[in-house]
Amino acid sequence: MGGACHPGLTIPIAAGRKLCSVTDDLRDQVHAAARRARVAADELVLATRERKDAALHEMAAALRQRAPEIIEANQKDLEAGKAAGLPEGILDRLALTEARIEGVAQGLETVAGQADPVGEVIRGGILPNGLELKQVRVPMGVVGMVYEARPNVTVDAAGLALKSGNAALLRGSSTAEHSNTTLVAVLRDALESVNLPADCVQLLPCHDRASVTHLITARGLVDLVIPRGGAGLINAVVEQATVPTIETGVGNCHVYVDAHADLDMAEAIVLNAKTRRTSVCNAAESLLVHKDVAKEFVPRVTKALQQESVTIHGDEQFAQQDGVLKANDDDWGTEYLSLDISAKVVGSLDEAVKHIATYGSGHSEAIVTNDVAAARKFTARVDAAAVFVNASTAFTDGAEFGMGAEIGISTQKLHARGPMGLSELTSSKWVVWGEGHTRPKA
Amino acid sequence: MGGACHPGLTIPIAAGRKLCSVTDDLRDQVHAAARRARVAADELVLATRERKDAALHEMAAALRQRAPEIIEANQKDLEAGKAAGLPEGILDRLALTEARIEGVAQGLETVAGQADPVGEVIRGGILPNGLELKQVRVPMGVVGMVYEARPNVTVDAAGLALKSGNAALLRGSSTAEHSNTTLVAVLRDALESVNLPADCVQLLPCHDRASVTHLITARGLVDLVIPRGGAGLINAVVEQATVPTIETGVGNCHVYVDAHADLDMAEAIVLNAKTRRTSVCNAAESLLVHKDVAKEFVPRVTKALQQESVTIHGDEQFAQQDGVLKANDDDWGTEYLSLDISAKVVGSLDEAVKHIATYGSGHSEAIVTNDVAAARKFTARVDAAAVFVNASTAFTDGAEFGMGAEIGISTQKLHARGPMGLSELTSSKWVVWGEGHTRPKA
Repeated sequence: MGGACHPGLTIPIAAGRKLCSVTDDLRDQVHAAARRARVAADELVLATRERKDAALHEMAAALRQRAPEIIEANQKDLEAGKAAGLPEGILDRLALTEARIEGVAQGLETVAGQADPVGEVIRGGILPNGLELKQVRVPMGVVGMVYEARPNVTVDAAGLALKSGNAALLRGSSTAEHSNTTLVAVLRDALESVNLPADCVQLLPCHDRASVTHLITARGLVDLVIPRGGAGLINAVVEQATVPTIETGVGNCHVYVDAHADLDMAEAIVLNAKTRRTSVCNAAESLLVHKDVAKEFVPRVTKALQQESVTIHGDEQFAQQDGVLKANDDDWGTEYLSLDISAKVVGSLDEAVKHIATYGSGHSEAIVTNDVAAARKFTARVDAAAVFVNASTAFTDGAEFGMGAEIGISTQKLHARGPMGLSELTSSKWVVWGEGHTRPKA
Repeated sequence: MGGACHPGLTIPIAAGRKLCSVTDDLRDQVHAAARRARVAADELVLATRERKDAALHEMAAALRQRAPEIIEANQKDLEAGKAAGLPEGILDRLALTEARIEGVAQGLETVAGQADPVGEVIRGGILPNGLELKQVRVPMGVVGMVYEARPNVTVDAAGLALKSGNAALLRGSSTAEHSNTTLVAVLRDALESVNLPADCVQLLPCHDRASVTHLITARGLVDLVIPRGGAGLINAVVEQATVPTIETGVGNCHVYVDAHADLDMAEAIVLNAKTRRTSVCNAAESLLVHKDVAKEFVPRVTKALQQESVTIHGDEQFAQQDGVLKANDDDWGTEYLSLDISAKVVGSLDEAVKHIATYGSGHSEAIVTNDVAAARKFTARVDAAAVFVNASTAFTDGAEFGMGAEIGISTQKLHARGPMGLSELTSSKWVVWGEGHTRPKA
């Protein structure tokens, strides 16, 4: 594996603009990047939508124009990845083609077309004493992103952060180092060409896990960190962070087929939620079937899933079907992200709700039923970012929900829950105008 | 100091309902309380506003009726506090009288009169594919509060948590142990009398700092912890927490008197912001004066502040006035919470903004000016929960902002910023109804 980031060599700390030796303290590098980001954010907070959209269009144009350069860098990552024996799936996610670059460029243009969340008045009015009160959306400030393989996230995150007025500190995977370095260089040049600070987008050193630690403990320097990756990354971030963070993207999603389900509908929803795309967090990982329909539905759904090459990890009743593996206790809590599903017969809706409370990850949960009372009970009692009645969990997605692009799907309850679009990348501020108002003593 | 909470004795872990020996692991106690809270929260999420309001009225009535018992318990805390040599100010905040109990009872009735945030539709509509989408407010679930001396916070927090559908884990100060234990027992009895689970309100052990640690690391068991206290407590919580937390209440607030200020107005606002109540977080701690008005305003405001017994810690220019102490570098970052103020002449609005960015705590900042451009620049660039034009910082308060009672004032950017009322104690959930909708493959 080649690359400018090796120990002992000089490394680029901000898209190749400034070179410094790795004998420098990594913590100082991350903090210095955060301080530059703060300066950039202080300028960005004053940028009009016009200026930010111009930057996004410029970034898109630059990506198209410099596609050969980006693909060349990407080739280095792919070769290194192959040499290191990375699995096909990861290599595929890592690969950038002209078509994929066109895709991310169009993504930036879509973000330019979306409303600017900054300045939106959330609440407001005139108080009895005449004070004029407005709660307005403001940027978070400096936002860190920690993510894995896919280099398109670099561009998506930079675009969403810019539009919402935030400076982005991007900590991508070392696997995508050359791709990310080139992408960020292209984006920074585009920012400068429209007179916005290049430091709105910075790439952090990616070879040492410690750069993540320094980012998530840079309290006061960084306003928010969004880890996007597997449960391991997210747990590590939550354990160590002193900066506010948002947990994203772990989805152990269930489809519950109720006693009063339309079984044709149930089969279609289960198949769609499981097989549409197995590697995404809104895919179903577990099937719960009410005992009253189990006799008919268990053989039927087993056959349908098996025809789509899905392996079922079932309870006693499912395991009586040919080809179904016996589930062990770990299966109920497993996010397979593959053509596997756990499956269980439950005695009641209450048991389904309890099972989901025990094993679910608070992402997306669906009930299939024609019973209004059951649907209302399920939506009221299941505690998740998204709860579906007679629809596939696959719809949990910022674009599907009409929010435009998304930066991730929050599975925590604080600040944002579910798909995070531009609004979810903002904070708010109370702005109060008076004419010499003082508050009487109590 | 007496009390049931001493090492080696049995201690009440949930308002005296269950006694267990301290040889039990404190961590297990806190976790067990959190698990009971979850069960209570699962019931509370289904409680209608009618039931919650009935409970709040019952709690208010019970506090009035059992006031003698509460005052008796409070006497024990006061005696122990005197014996331990607590300062007058703290003893005053600790004291409960009939009038103060009436005050907190009325507070509960006010909360009952407020709208229920749970179920409020934040956004919603029908997607192009016919899916019916609603984002609704839901309770956080289990909310922990860590707070100091004042026992009225126990009742306020319990009431706000209940109304917003949350089970509360209260970790008060050991100084207020008897008062809090009795208050919580009264509240729990009232809950049971209206058939809501008593475990909606639980008091955690208060003698060992470790109970705070166990609370803020009970990830998965506790959804949110709000520390309410000094910078030391809040820093400790942020450093150690794995549960989401909200920083509250540290306020190094500035009043900036611009070159184009009405100096009568400026004087009135400075006096009000500094002297109205010195012990609260919205009090001004620092005064910045534009150099163009310094010659007139510095002597004038110095005299006015000194007449109100305020000690000024001034820069060179202020220090030329009689009785003004020379400020040292620490003064600019100090939240005095007393009749002290730091004061400095600045060369420009930009310098004022930069000073506030360096030393402010992101709470409340005010400009006094008649210059529209200056006011707009100040409100756009100062990054704080509340920014005032020609009004006192003392207005940052949930009740003043028309939000009803508040649980604290958030100085962080994630989730809630500024006064936190009922809405800020909720999360949200996407509820999606379809008729067999499946998502096409990409």
